[in-house]
Amino acid sequence: MQVVDFNSDMGEGFGPWTIGDGVDNELMGYISTANIATGFHAGDPGTMRRTVERAKALGVAVGAHPGFRDLVGFGRRHINAPAQELVDDMLYQLGALREIARAQGVHLQHIKPHGALYMHLARDEEAARLLVENLRVIEPELLLYCMPGSVICRIAQELDQPVIREFYADREYDLSGSIVFTRNVRGHEPGAVADRVLRACQQGVVRTVEGQDLAIEFDSICLHSDTPGALDLVEATRQALDAAGIVVRAPR
Amino acid sequence: MQVVDFNSDMGEGFGPWTIGDGVDNELMGYISTANIATGFHAGDPGTMRRTVERAKALGVAVGAHPGFRDLVGFGRRHINAPAQELVDDMLYQLGALREIARAQGVHLQHIKPHGALYMHLARDEEAARLLVENLRVIEPELLLYCMPGSVICRIAQELDQPVIREFYADREYDLSGSIVFTRNVRGHEPGAVADRVLRACQQGVVRTVEGQDLAIEFDSICLHSDTPGALDLVEATRQALDAAGIVVRAPR
Amino acid sequence: MQVVDFNSDMGEGFGPWTIGDGVDNELMGYISTANIATGFHAGDPGTMRRTVERAKALGVAVGAHPGFRDLVGFGRRHINAPAQELVDDMLYQLGALREIARAQGVHLQHIKPHGALYMHLARDEEAARLLVENLRVIEPELLLYCMPGSVICRIAQELDQPVIREFYADREYDLSGSIVFTRNVRGHEPGAVADRVLRACQQGVVRTVEGQDLAIEFDSICLHSDTPGALDLVEATRQALDAAGIVVRAPR
Amino acid sequence: MQVVDFNSDMGEGFGPWTIGDGVDNELMGYISTANIATGFHAGDPGTMRRTVERAKALGVAVGAHPGFRDLVGFGRRHINAPAQELVDDMLYQLGALREIARAQGVHLQHIKPHGALYMHLARDEEAARLLVENLRVIEPELLLYCMPGSVICRIAQELDQPVIREFYADREYDLSGSIVFTRNVRGHEPGAVADRVLRACQQGVVRTVEGQDLAIEFDSICLHSDTPGALDLVEATRQALDAAGIVVRAPR
Repeated sequence: MQVVDFNSDMGEGFGPWTIGDGVDNELMGYISTANIATGFHAGDPGTMRRTVERAKALGVAVGAHPGFRDLVGFGRRHINAPAQELVDDMLYQLGALREIARAQGVHLQHIKPHGALYMHLARDEEAARLLVENLRVIEPELLLYCMPGSVICRIAQELDQPVIREFYADREYDLSGSIVFTRNVRGHEPGAVADRVLRACQQGVVRTVEGQDLAIEFDSICLHSDTPGALDLVEATRQALDAAGIVVRAPR
Repeated sequence: MQVVDFNSDMGEGFGPWTIGDGVDNELMGYISTANIATGFHAGDPGTMRRTVERAKALGVAVGAHPGFRDLVGFGRRHINAPAQELVDDMLYQLGALREIARAQGVHLQHIKPHGALYMHLARDEEAARLLVENLRVIEPELLLYCMPGSVICRIAQELDQPVIREFYADREYDLSGSIVFTRNVRGHEPGAVADRVLRACQQGVVRTVEGQDLAIEFDSICLHSDTPGALDLVEATRQALDAAGIVVRAPR
Repeated sequence: MQVVDFNSDMGEGFGPWTIGDGVDNELMGYISTANIATGFHAGDPGTMRRTVERAKALGVAVGAHPGFRDLVGFGRRHINAPAQELVDDMLYQLGALREIARAQGVHLQHIKPHGALYMHLARDEEAARLLVENLRVIEPELLLYCMPGSVICRIAQELDQPVIREFYADREYDLSGSIVFTRNVRGHEPGAVADRVLRACQQGVVRTVEGQDLAIEFDSICLHSDTPGALDLVEATRQALDAAGIVVRAPR
Repeated sequence: MQVVDFNSDMGEGFGPWTIGDGVDNELMGYISTANIATGFHAGDPGTMRRTVERAKALGVAVGAHPGFRDLVGFGRRHINAPAQELVDDMLYQLGALREIARAQGVHLQHIKPHGALYMHLARDEEAARLLVENLRVIEPELLLYCMPGSVICRIAQELDQPVIREFYADREYDLSGSIVFTRNVRGHEPGAVADRVLRACQQGVVRTVEGQDLAIEFDSICLHSDTPGALDLVEATRQALDAAGIVVRAPR
């Protein structure tokens, strides 16, 4: 029996605003793990509470999704900040969600940095190491979601912080294993995305932008909830996984 | 042997800015409990970390000092928000500090709302009750600093959340036991403040603006760090307590 | 020939987020005046520029729609701030939009405070007077949109700042002329809203929640763009006005 | 008779917080031009108004000092944002100050970007060009303060937007003409700074970190108000200029 985790970013509204199609509630029914925005790039305390409540009701595991302090830019713009400052910001956000979850009797499963901060930690040795060292102190069992082969993935493995390696269902790869930010419409058709995911799960490969296959290893499928048509993509992917007998289940 | 707690608000800078005389580091040497600003009305993650580190080095107990989401107004302006929203905001801030403290191996002793939020909870039954109910779930031993006789003090006592009742060394009282916001310069002379505190500790009374004594009960002396000349006030008060053989010690 | 202005709040997104149905672009085709959010409660500089460009392309007049500094609450929560502070905030926002409009060669027609700030100025003599006095200095011809019979309307008329009195197509009135915040579904059907507006324009009356008619005078119809189904309401209203031969035109 | 402008950043408090020594009021007495923070990296509408009032009372020229939208980082951290977004942000801030100044009957003399945004525009062709093109439309006479030899200086000269070239009294230069961010204590002694400025004014040279002289041309001396001991530096510099018969006067 094959098992895989299926994660998506949730709770990315802010106050009365929604992002993407605003379909968190429906989308939550198809995934096993929710990365909940923690207020610096998206999300607010009320949205965080409601998202935790919804995840709890559906048995979806939750984790913190901290980002750069950049609300208007949705955490997608890189900010040139010292490692210590970024780690302070991430601990702040992690604890904020942890407390809100605790009030609902929910334990946090993981942490996954968002957007430009995710990419920064994939490359920046100093910030990545400082974060992992802090996680070792705070909660050595907290899962760290990351990109296979990234700097932070390597450091976490060195320091024994458990990692969950991700496969991006709605992003293109090149032969180096890097993610390519194209506007490839084909990649965003529900059937194509579902096929891509199935192939990754069953054969361990993904077709790159160069047209050749790349071998990949991963523990979790990631699909972004703010991708246009995200609900269709997630639904099609989940159905394909179910039909293939692949069990969708959170790591914890 | 008489024992009393001595608390002050700490970490109220924001980024590169300081408030009051910017004397937290010195002031921390005279108090037993620090209320650390948690980012909504003052403070930022780095300032929070440094304030926890300083408190730890000096053996000062720390707690969360959450405020309204109102940075420019320093949490001193009332915002007409639903109880649930305010409690979500407070849990968010509480958890943020808790995580930062945890990374330093420091346990939170208490929570004390700030400014206009403190006053709101002293009067608003719904918000006060919802906060205390959440504290019962999250951490039934977390101390709640509050004004004796306030709505939140009564509710906490009803629901068995432990309270620490405060005496305000730098605020005037009237005969009803309410705090009067005057600009009484006399009250801010170090000697006068120290005498007032000693009298409150030894005789259990405070001279009101009406000129008569009011009986008061309290567990902790509060002195605001952003009062002009705060360092002199705190130093004088601490020396008077020491000289009188009154032990300054945090409740936990 | 009867002429009336038709205004709606525009540009209420923030960064990547949308509010309501996110139909500003379509809605702009049916109105004559756009109140553009200016960044404190909604809107951001880029959204402001794009909204001005769209209004300019369609010949829609634009004005500033400043709100309380309360992004997460969308300016719907009252903040207890001094009059001078509120006026400083409004001038700041007014100028911000004015400069962005100037870069497009567009002149501002008016100012209309938003949400809780609109209601505050309808009641608070000090803040209303200080705003109007500042408008007298800055631009004595700038139109001030307001509620007929409100404090700010009276003060503007006293001080000769020109006013545009509004009729709220999607709000209920009571016999005192006050707006009643009900959840009256009937009132939000396109046909009912259009009929209500027509009746107001042609007969000068509105049916109150008490079931009796109230005489009203106004210069502009207001319909909120974040009302669910706003596009249908605006479209139906505009068609009814056109069919009745009532010309929809901005005051300037 | 030799004439030079002397500018400093003013109004860099935020709400109740101060930065540096909080000596704006005193410092304003020695300069001819004030760059007023416009709310994104520092400053708030009330502080802006009070700073304009103070400048007006002392006959000091005022201009907008817009920064990155980064309050906690005081606009000193680079944010990777598109040129259009940065220009939208700058126009927003420029207009905000312009309106507040207009309410005091004060005309804006100039614009000078702050901190990391100043450095960004000194290097980034696209953002610099887009800003200058917008200034050409908005106000072709508005002075642009910039670093001699920078990209934005060159573009402004090409497009005929008038520039004021700065000499940094409290920064070190290298032989390439670049500013070097050292912690050279010597450079921050009042006497040394005053001598440096005099030499620059009278001989047109500055001693570089390499120990050799560099020829410089400039129209204005800049001294940062958040440098520790700024008041002493500014006072000494002004006295040296006065004693040497060099007239300190704003360009307009």
